[in-house]
Amino acid sequence: MTPETEDKPTVTIACIQFEPIIGQVEANLAAIEERVRRAHARGARLIVLPELADSGYVFDSSEELAALAQPIPGGRSAEHLCALARELDIYIVSGLAEAAEGRFYNSAIFCGPEGHIGTYRKLHLWGRENLFFEKGDLGLPVFDTPLGRIGIAICYDGWFPETFRQLAMKGAEVICVPTNWVPMPDQDPKAEAMSNILHKAAAHSNGLFIACADRVGIERGQPFIGQSLIIDATGWPLAGPADREQEEILYATIRPSDVATKRKLNEFNDIFGDRRSDVYG
Amino acid sequence: MTPETEDKPTVTIACIQFEPIIGQVEANLAAIEERVRRAHARGARLIVLPELADSGYVFDSSEELAALAQPIPGGRSAEHLCALARELDIYIVSGLAEAAEGRFYNSAIFCGPEGHIGTYRKLHLWGRENLFFEKGDLGLPVFDTPLGRIGIAICYDGWFPETFRQLAMKGAEVICVPTNWVPMPDQDPKAEAMSNILHKAAAHSNGLFIACADRVGIERGQPFIGQSLIIDATGWPLAGPADREQEEILYATIRPSDVATKRKLNEFNDIFGDRRSDVYG
Repeated sequence: MTPETEDKPTVTIACIQFEPIIGQVEANLAAIEERVRRAHARGARLIVLPELADSGYVFDSSEELAALAQPIPGGRSAEHLCALARELDIYIVSGLAEAAEGRFYNSAIFCGPEGHIGTYRKLHLWGRENLFFEKGDLGLPVFDTPLGRIGIAICYDGWFPETFRQLAMKGAEVICVPTNWVPMPDQDPKAEAMSNILHKAAAHSNGLFIACADRVGIERGQPFIGQSLIIDATGWPLAGPADREQEEILYATIRPSDVATKRKLNEFNDIFGDRRSDVYG
Repeated sequence: MTPETEDKPTVTIACIQFEPIIGQVEANLAAIEERVRRAHARGARLIVLPELADSGYVFDSSEELAALAQPIPGGRSAEHLCALARELDIYIVSGLAEAAEGRFYNSAIFCGPEGHIGTYRKLHLWGRENLFFEKGDLGLPVFDTPLGRIGIAICYDGWFPETFRQLAMKGAEVICVPTNWVPMPDQDPKAEAMSNILHKAAAHSNGLFIACADRVGIERGQPFIGQSLIIDATGWPLAGPADREQEEILYATIRPSDVATKRKLNEFNDIFGDRRSDVYG
C-alpha cells in the first residue's frame, strides 16, 4: 500500500465451496442463495461460486445436459442470480451450464447490482466435457466495474499460463475462478493440490488477486478435491486452502488497485516491463 | 512409461548447491571441480551448477566484474569446465560471468564430452544486475544432445511463464536452471520458496523436467535461499528441496523422452493440443 492507493476502494471477496447435486437445478439455486445471503451478511460484496454450480458436473448424456442448460442472460439460473445481486447490491461470479442456439457451453455468469454484466465461456475443456460442450468463443474478457477490473477463468483454464498472462495484460486485477478440480494423475492425495500451486504461481507471476471456489463431494464416482483458495497478488494465500471434503466459505478483503504496486518489484524490476516480447515470438 | 519409451535412455542429473566466493575464480573452479567429480562418482551424467558460479554475485563495480568475466568458450572457466566434461564423459551446465567484445552477460555454459555445446545469456536481469550486465541476446536455445533436448533458464527467467512455454514448444525436455535465488518481497521465510512454487507449476504446465541448482550463503549482505530442486515433468519433486543454508548435492534419474507421455493427460487432453492460440493473441 502506498499513499496514492490507500484511498482506493477495498472489496471483501467470498468463495463459496459447496456440493451441487447433479440435475437438481432448483435445489442448487436454493443452496446457492442461502450461502450467498450468509456471505453477504458477513460483508462480502464479490461472491464466487463453483463451476457448473446450478447443474452439477458429471453428465450421463447430451440429453441430460440439454434439459439443464439455460440461456445467459434470460435463463432460470441467470435470472435468479441477477435478482439476488440486485437485491443485495453485490457482485456474483458463478459457473452455469449455458444453452445458446442449440449449443452448450461450460460458462460463468458475472452479475451485479445493475444485472447481467457479462458471460465467460470456458476456453479449455477437460476430459469428457469435450463430449458435451463447445469450446469457449468469447475470448478472455475483462470487466471494468466499480469494484475493479475482473477477469474469469474456469478450472482447466488455469493449467494454461497464457490465461492469466492475457487477462493481466488486458488490465485485470482480480481473477474469479469457478472450478470443479479433480485429482490430477500422479498427485499424492496428501500433498498440496497442484491446482493451488498453479494458481499461486499465476498470481505471483502476474501480480493478480485470484479467488478460486471449488466444489466438494463425489458425483457418479468422480471425486472433487475442495481446497478453494483466495490468493494475494504476491502469490501468497489470503484465505484457505479450504477443507478437502467439507463445505466452507472463505473470505478475504483486498484492494484490487494494489496490483499496480505489487507488480513493481523493486527500483529495477517490474513484471510487465521486464517481459522479453522480442524473444517470446 | 509406456512400452514405446522404456528402452529410451535415462540420465542421472545432479544439482550442486554450494557457496561460490565473490571474486575468487580459481577457488570457485576448484570447489566446482571437487563437487563435479563427486557427483560423477555417484553416477551423474548431467550436472547443474549455480548462477555465476565462477565469479560470485554481488559485484561492487563494473570494474570488479570486468576483472572476473571471461569469454565463453575460450576463457579460463569455460575451458576448465569443458576439459572436465571431456575427461569424465559428462555434461555440465554452469552459470558463468561472460565477457564478449567489451560487454558482459550473466550466462550459462553448456559443455559435454565433445567440448563447448552452447551458451545461454540470461534474458531477464534482476535488480542491480541491470547495472553490470547486458540483457541476453541469444534467445532461448534448445540443445539436441544424446541425453535429450536441453534448455537453460537462469534465476529471474523463471518468473516469466513464457520462458518455459517457449522452451517446451521448441522441443525441450529438460530445463537446467543455474540460479542465485534471493528472498522475495512478502515471502514468509518459513514457507515454501516462491521460486519452488513457480518451477513446479512450470514443470506441470509444460510437461518439462526442471533441475534447479541454487547457491547458499550471505555475500556482502545479500542472503541466498538454497532449496535447490529437481522436478518431474508432472510438477512433483524428484529430489529436494535442498537445505536453505547448507551445501548439498541432489540426484535424480529421469528418462527425458517421458515428456511425450506426460504431456498427454488423458484420452481427451494434451497440454499443447489444448492451447487456444486463436485466443492468446
